[in-house]
Amino acid sequence: MKVLRPIWLDKDLKTVQVIDQRRLPHQCVVQNLRTVADTVRAIQNMSVRGAPLIGVTGAYGMYLAALSGEDLEAAGRRIKAARPTAVNLSWAVDRVLAAAQKSSTREETIRITRNQAERITEFEVENCRQIGLHGLELIEEIARKKNGAAVNILTHCNAGWLACVEYGTATAPIYAAHELGTDVHVWVDETRPLNQGARLTAWELEKAGVRHTVICDNAGGHLMQRRMVDIVIVGSDRATAAGDAANKIGTYLKALAARDNGIPFYVALPSSTFDWNLRDGVREIPIENRNADEVRFVDGFDGKNPVRVRITPEKSPAANPAFDVTPARLITGFITERGICRADEQDIRRLFPRPA
Amino acid sequence: MKVLRPIWLDKDLKTVQVIDQRRLPHQCVVQNLRTVADTVRAIQNMSVRGAPLIGVTGAYGMYLAALSGEDLEAAGRRIKAARPTAVNLSWAVDRVLAAAQKSSTREETIRITRNQAERITEFEVENCRQIGLHGLELIEEIARKKNGAAVNILTHCNAGWLACVEYGTATAPIYAAHELGTDVHVWVDETRPLNQGARLTAWELEKAGVRHTVICDNAGGHLMQRRMVDIVIVGSDRATAAGDAANKIGTYLKALAARDNGIPFYVALPSSTFDWNLRDGVREIPIENRNADEVRFVDGFDGKNPVRVRITPEKSPAANPAFDVTPARLITGFITERGICRADEQDIRRLFPRPA
Repeated sequence: MKVLRPIWLDKDLKTVQVIDQRRLPHQCVVQNLRTVADTVRAIQNMSVRGAPLIGVTGAYGMYLAALSGEDLEAAGRRIKAARPTAVNLSWAVDRVLAAAQKSSTREETIRITRNQAERITEFEVENCRQIGLHGLELIEEIARKKNGAAVNILTHCNAGWLACVEYGTATAPIYAAHELGTDVHVWVDETRPLNQGARLTAWELEKAGVRHTVICDNAGGHLMQRRMVDIVIVGSDRATAAGDAANKIGTYLKALAARDNGIPFYVALPSSTFDWNLRDGVREIPIENRNADEVRFVDGFDGKNPVRVRITPEKSPAANPAFDVTPARLITGFITERGICRADEQDIRRLFPRPA
Repeated sequence: MKVLRPIWLDKDLKTVQVIDQRRLPHQCVVQNLRTVADTVRAIQNMSVRGAPLIGVTGAYGMYLAALSGEDLEAAGRRIKAARPTAVNLSWAVDRVLAAAQKSSTREETIRITRNQAERITEFEVENCRQIGLHGLELIEEIARKKNGAAVNILTHCNAGWLACVEYGTATAPIYAAHELGTDVHVWVDETRPLNQGARLTAWELEKAGVRHTVICDNAGGHLMQRRMVDIVIVGSDRATAAGDAANKIGTYLKALAARDNGIPFYVALPSSTFDWNLRDGVREIPIENRNADEVRFVDGFDGKNPVRVRITPEKSPAANPAFDVTPARLITGFITERGICRADEQDIRRLFPRPA
């Protein structure tokens, strides 16, 4: 069976190909990245997005830099500056850089950077597979308590295979449970402004045959009040050593609602998303402010073509913070490739004794 | 100065005219209501919306029923069933019905129903004016504490003059402060799915010259974490005698974030929005589930024409609960036409000793 991935190296070995995620679900278009500039642009304009995938794309960008004989340090700086919040980007670039330092010839640099990009890719695939197996236990436990009635999972944004490479982070346990035949139903936050939930998560789940319902970001609190959500699982773009987690804007509001209603709130993430240098997420994690037109305009499909429409008055300004930080105190636990832990430094260190 | 209102009786005295709020801000179109059916349709399709305005529209619908010689009781039942959540609708219809019972001739019924509709209209105008004066004190107090620096007010949905008749409920204190020359800045939640914030509140504020910034519904928690919000003021569609308040879906999430960050959260409402028969809002207030296509599609403007675009995959289902209930424990206070009170039965009764 051929598994679709959001990124791969073309047969020419000179072109990195990615699915242009801005155009899903209405169109599935492959984009070619041939230079560092292409890589930076694809990350910035969100053709590729999702912390693990941004890291993988950055690693392949370093391979493209090596191919063209560019200075790797300079290329690494450009790539790392593409977006500020997801720490996977600098993590991946730094890994490639460190490995490339051992090479003495251009051919060796090319070979090493490619090898590193591929290793990081497979590392994240395996991480997501493990996250799926560990998170599966949480879902199965709820299914047992509900005597097999559908487990209702709420998720925000897209932390699916499109955001990673395979399985996804937040979706990995869902796909694993679905494969086992467990009845799962996913509440998909549409996730304004760029609607990664409505566009990407819904698309993924629909393709996989997983029951789901798209809701406005406003609806989750109401559903939790009515006990229509059993568990919340989201991804993360950067988590601190003390357990705070940045994720797509609006995640914090869902964590508050989960806490207010006694519903478990889990963050699924690979170790590459931990920033071991930070502790206080609200103060220390850089939050990207993106173009306000992402709020003022909505991309959709008019039945024939993709169309962009303005929803605000012409002169009204908008603001567009892209992430927020959920404090550790609101997080029931992390689902990582090494198992589940509480969102506190001690328990995180139990799984990851040394910074990865 | 001519004050624009969202509803008025035409010079022919047979046509109720309303602004079709579905088409704002891109087009300002007046719609004619000539029958009870027109009235019900305008309320259901949200040409008119906002609890006080729904009440006023319902009252005028009773006048239209009287004009055509219909059975008022039956007309009242149809109008009251148009939408379930805003209690102002049944409040207004019942007031007209009670007054009409005193009439013995058709002419008298017509005169009384029109008189009642006009009285309810002016009652709500005066209520909103008073809400503005009482709420103004809260804003001025913050302005003093900030030594005149801008007071940042977050609001959800549209509780402006479009939702009422003049001034609005949540916006009344804002307009009052702005007129006094106090520096106010409003964070406008876009308020998916129908974007009443991005479309209507932004339009109102822009027309009035009040500084504002449209944000996604997801952003408010982050802004509160960063102390970029001084006070939250929202409207309500139905509040219980014990202080729970239903409002547009997503309000509860903002109340949770305000509480988590120690930011005052006020609900501005006229007494016509209290349902004195209810106590437990989460269990007792009926929440309307609207057509899921309101989530799957977005109305906007392509630069030339209004356009509707789909944002979800074609086959993905959606759900659309239109309101949620904010428990009294999360509400700092109510701003009413009789003053400000805490969200508890005792303090509400201090202002409203007998059910209005």
